[in-house]
Amino acid sequence: MDFRAWSKERAEHFERVAQYTLPMETKQPWKLHQAMRYAVLDGGKRIRPLLVYAAGQLVDADASVTDHLALAVEYIHSYSLVHDDMPCMDNDTLRRGKLTTHRKFGEAMGMLTGDALQALAFEQVVQAKVNPEQVVQLVKLLAVAAGPSGMCGGQAIDLLAARSQLDLPTLTMMHRMKTGAMIRASALMGIYAGQSLPEPALIGQMAVYSDAIGLAFQVIDDILDVTADTQTLGKTAGKDAANDKPTYVSLLGVEKARELAKEQYNLAKTALQTLEADPRYAGKTQRLHEIADFIMARDH
Amino acid sequence: MDFRAWSKERAEHFERVAQYTLPMETKQPWKLHQAMRYAVLDGGKRIRPLLVYAAGQLVDADASVTDHLALAVEYIHSYSLVHDDMPCMDNDTLRRGKLTTHRKFGEAMGMLTGDALQALAFEQVVQAKVNPEQVVQLVKLLAVAAGPSGMCGGQAIDLLAARSQLDLPTLTMMHRMKTGAMIRASALMGIYAGQSLPEPALIGQMAVYSDAIGLAFQVIDDILDVTADTQTLGKTAGKDAANDKPTYVSLLGVEKARELAKEQYNLAKTALQTLEADPRYAGKTQRLHEIADFIMARDH
Repeated sequence: MDFRAWSKERAEHFERVAQYTLPMETKQPWKLHQAMRYAVLDGGKRIRPLLVYAAGQLVDADASVTDHLALAVEYIHSYSLVHDDMPCMDNDTLRRGKLTTHRKFGEAMGMLTGDALQALAFEQVVQAKVNPEQVVQLVKLLAVAAGPSGMCGGQAIDLLAARSQLDLPTLTMMHRMKTGAMIRASALMGIYAGQSLPEPALIGQMAVYSDAIGLAFQVIDDILDVTADTQTLGKTAGKDAANDKPTYVSLLGVEKARELAKEQYNLAKTALQTLEADPRYAGKTQRLHEIADFIMARDH
Repeated sequence: MDFRAWSKERAEHFERVAQYTLPMETKQPWKLHQAMRYAVLDGGKRIRPLLVYAAGQLVDADASVTDHLALAVEYIHSYSLVHDDMPCMDNDTLRRGKLTTHRKFGEAMGMLTGDALQALAFEQVVQAKVNPEQVVQLVKLLAVAAGPSGMCGGQAIDLLAARSQLDLPTLTMMHRMKTGAMIRASALMGIYAGQSLPEPALIGQMAVYSDAIGLAFQVIDDILDVTADTQTLGKTAGKDAANDKPTYVSLLGVEKARELAKEQYNLAKTALQTLEADPRYAGKTQRLHEIADFIMARDH
């Protein structure tokens, strides 16, 4: 199966699992459930679930375990988008080509939807049938990545940086926290989904891989914001420049930004080659390679 | 030590632990850390931490374990207050006699502060040094209580109920979710803080106790909203009536509401007497008794 077919199959599988797992609209509080389903279902590239599934292959993870973890990381991601889109943050109307959650359900419900999805993410982790020692590490990975030294912290730096100039190291720190932390957590959670705790060398290479693709992902996001149109993106294009936000493109220009992405891509590929050379992981890195390729090549 | 001295000592202890544990304002992202500290420190009655400490006594819990769990439940409570106070929800200016977090730090930072505190709550749970099996149950208790079938779900029902009429069973369901779930989680988490998993009879009685004091707490909150003044409450009095919100007082009147609180109080006391009759828990229920007494007697 090529990557396009695999990622389509995985995304459809994820959609079915999420459909089944998210609280039903027929159950009280039905409007909250409806908004939570709206925020998660039928959306996005599912990069974080794909990373969980692909990394899970390295440790022959059980399918039901990676499903729980894929839901957990995507719930966190979805909640962050719902809150990010709200008027006090980015004030966005469109997301993935449809109305943002708060535009559809009201601001108060938008806030509660995000809050509830975050709690539900942690509930998903404890439902993963692995050793309790692994569950504890999984909760820790997710909590640290989602919290003030991860995603929320990066958003706070981003917020204060708007309309001011950040230098390259600070911009990179911000992105490593804001988007990188959850991409890293997704890949690492995948390797905690096996029969036992992952060994240090695996953790190390997966950290290098996921940090590198996380950064490449962001650089390319910045490039797409200036080179793609709103229709292709499924969200408002040119927002960064309009908001006077510092980006890799504003700091480096498009060409140097592309070089930086390529450099990170090469780092990620090298980490995978190192794993591939280990008999325990040989033949199990294909999907991770393809995810890196996809991130480099994407146009939306 | 009488209850006043014990609860003062515990609250001061909690304050020191929180001071030390919350991310420092000197560390990036400092403004987020500052807002998180503002939202948690120097505030409130610390009922939920007191419940963790008091319930922990039943199982001779280690002090550092109950500290982590007390922080976890209070972080969740604090985040819910920050989000609740925001313009799209209750639009409140004062909380505990000082400016609400979003009034002090701006709305975007208010939202991020709540989001980050929720993640940090789960990080605290995994830091508790108990058996991994217990940590898994603790995370589950907290996630379920904070999520759509607990606190967030109750808030959603509350939100949709404003300016409409709820009947008594629906009002009670709403409060059992909105405030009751986290009070229950606080008490139950305390009994998961021992050397091993708590036995079913203990879980059962603590569930009865905490559900009863949770409901009594809410009924008395509704009574205080109409009988106390803003100064005594430390928050705006009379808000429920002004917002045309259904309350126990609006549905039952003050006298019948007091009777309901008393009935729940008796339920809670009976559950504790049952535990007290068990040699394993004899002599260990005093603080839980006193917390029930305090909830009945409080004037703010």
